[in-house]
Amino acid sequence: MSLFLPLTILATGKALPSRCVLSSELDLQLGKPRGHVQKRSGMVQRYYARDDECQSDLAARALQDALARADLRPGSIDLLLSASGVQEQALPATASRILDVAGLPDGTPGFDIAASCLSFLAALHVAASLLNTGSYKRIAVVASDLASRGIDWGCAEASLIFGDGAAAAIVERGDGASGIESYLLHTYPAGKALCEIRAGGTRRNPRVGVEPSDFLFRMDGKGVFKMAAGVIDEVLERLLAQAGVGLDAIQTIVPHQASHLGMRHMVQRLKVAPGKIIDIYATHGNQVAASIPTALHEAFVTGRAGPGSRIMMFGTAAGLSVGGMVVRL
Amino acid sequence: MSLFLPLTILATGKALPSRCVLSSELDLQLGKPRGHVQKRSGMVQRYYARDDECQSDLAARALQDALARADLRPGSIDLLLSASGVQEQALPATASRILDVAGLPDGTPGFDIAASCLSFLAALHVAASLLNTGSYKRIAVVASDLASRGIDWGCAEASLIFGDGAAAAIVERGDGASGIESYLLHTYPAGKALCEIRAGGTRRNPRVGVEPSDFLFRMDGKGVFKMAAGVIDEVLERLLAQAGVGLDAIQTIVPHQASHLGMRHMVQRLKVAPGKIIDIYATHGNQVAASIPTALHEAFVTGRAGPGSRIMMFGTAAGLSVGGMVVRL
Repeated sequence: MSLFLPLTILATGKALPSRCVLSSELDLQLGKPRGHVQKRSGMVQRYYARDDECQSDLAARALQDALARADLRPGSIDLLLSASGVQEQALPATASRILDVAGLPDGTPGFDIAASCLSFLAALHVAASLLNTGSYKRIAVVASDLASRGIDWGCAEASLIFGDGAAAAIVERGDGASGIESYLLHTYPAGKALCEIRAGGTRRNPRVGVEPSDFLFRMDGKGVFKMAAGVIDEVLERLLAQAGVGLDAIQTIVPHQASHLGMRHMVQRLKVAPGKIIDIYATHGNQVAASIPTALHEAFVTGRAGPGSRIMMFGTAAGLSVGGMVVRL
Repeated sequence: MSLFLPLTILATGKALPSRCVLSSELDLQLGKPRGHVQKRSGMVQRYYARDDECQSDLAARALQDALARADLRPGSIDLLLSASGVQEQALPATASRILDVAGLPDGTPGFDIAASCLSFLAALHVAASLLNTGSYKRIAVVASDLASRGIDWGCAEASLIFGDGAAAAIVERGDGASGIESYLLHTYPAGKALCEIRAGGTRRNPRVGVEPSDFLFRMDGKGVFKMAAGVIDEVLERLLAQAGVGLDAIQTIVPHQASHLGMRHMVQRLKVAPGKIIDIYATHGNQVAASIPTALHEAFVTGRAGPGSRIMMFGTAAGLSVGGMVVRL
């Protein structure tokens, strides 16, 4: 199905928690030789929220950054979509908590869209549909994740990949010259337990039993790699075929910053020049759902995305989901 | 903004956990005189999931019920929206876990939409927009909640209002004769703490501190009532004005089954015959996000909703949100 969905990205913004943690600090914390964490993780630094910093505040700061960059009034937003991988609390929706600190007018509707690390893409596609049916005029999509709250320091594989952060995009329908040229999301639920945090809802809960470890992120890295490798080529091929373009027609690739090896593997698989891919992994890590919009913001501020260019956002997510979007800016 | 959004509800379905709990059983459990719980709660019974029953299984059963009632193939669904108030676990999305047991083809996309007790309405509106932009042909919206996992038995006000359950709707764009005549969602985040479960995400978390009570539902009933009462008339008025009809043109009202008093108050406020309002509270309780679709299913199976009729779904939600939808069936 080929389908052009008009959409204009008016502004993007980002926010990071106050605490920047160098890999050398983690060497000390983990009792490892100097250079171990940087070599192992591929990261120089990442940001972790302090205990008194919260996800909704970070989200609001990213939204305010986007508003300020395009000189837009908070009151001009008529819907807020919170697109985080993990929410701030079980109830109510994180969107309510963001609205409370973001300075949007009382009554502005907000709800959450969650598709793990692909939440931003799912929400951006929903936003485009809502704008094209005339339901709203201007929508803010905000992704904010504090992965540090669930890091299992006893797990060498998963503990070193994450960083915290938030990013936002403010979108309108536009005049139809720019928009989504293709979008795909595929979910392979046989992989539902490959990446997970078991607590946080009705499954592992004080009433029916929960262990402290259930609050930590668990990953079967090899399992994810194997499952994703089996479907990723087909999804990429279909994504480009739907857009009716080849990879050479994409100016910039904005991937989910999954991991050091994941990023390297993508460069090899796509056979494109590394400079064509937004790679902020070494300084940000995997920021869960905030990764793609943070990388998108990076593409804009570094001039690698702009009016008339074509970008492809792409990634895998817990679930297991694989998805992407080709956008003509 | 008046806007007609084509939508056809092909089928609805519901599911309940195996354990039906009579109010007389709760009298014994709570050490109260016979008849206390029924009088206080307005409920004869409610359903609570057993420890080994889970939210995604219940959701899948509701979806399968809907599929069976309209003789639809699971493979005909091209998107699953999970629209629960509380999710099954922090990561991945509950949609993945539902897809795993629902028998839909591998690769079928799924993600979560959360707006507390109004999640089903938000998701149904998103579904209609996605169908009208041609992004999908047939969407399943499933809401499933196990409120019993968070009941604070020490809180007389909030402990007796809930029941568990799930319900689903399968929708298409249709030929344009039926659809959404109006839809509104308003969020008043000053009320974000009036109904909440503080744990379950990054806010109250083992890493930064969490108490056993943070996993329980807390409600300031008077605060909710006061805040909702201040805005509900205006929202209802705007909802009908957008649809361009009066209340007399609505055949059946399908409200969120918030509480005994809430339901009674709605009848008084709307000044309509009680028979015009779907009231399943006495046998189901407040099923969080599953309440509205379960009541919608009840409207269909009892012949109070059907082709050519006009219904209004309506409710309040933690957040605090107020919203509704007028649908021409």
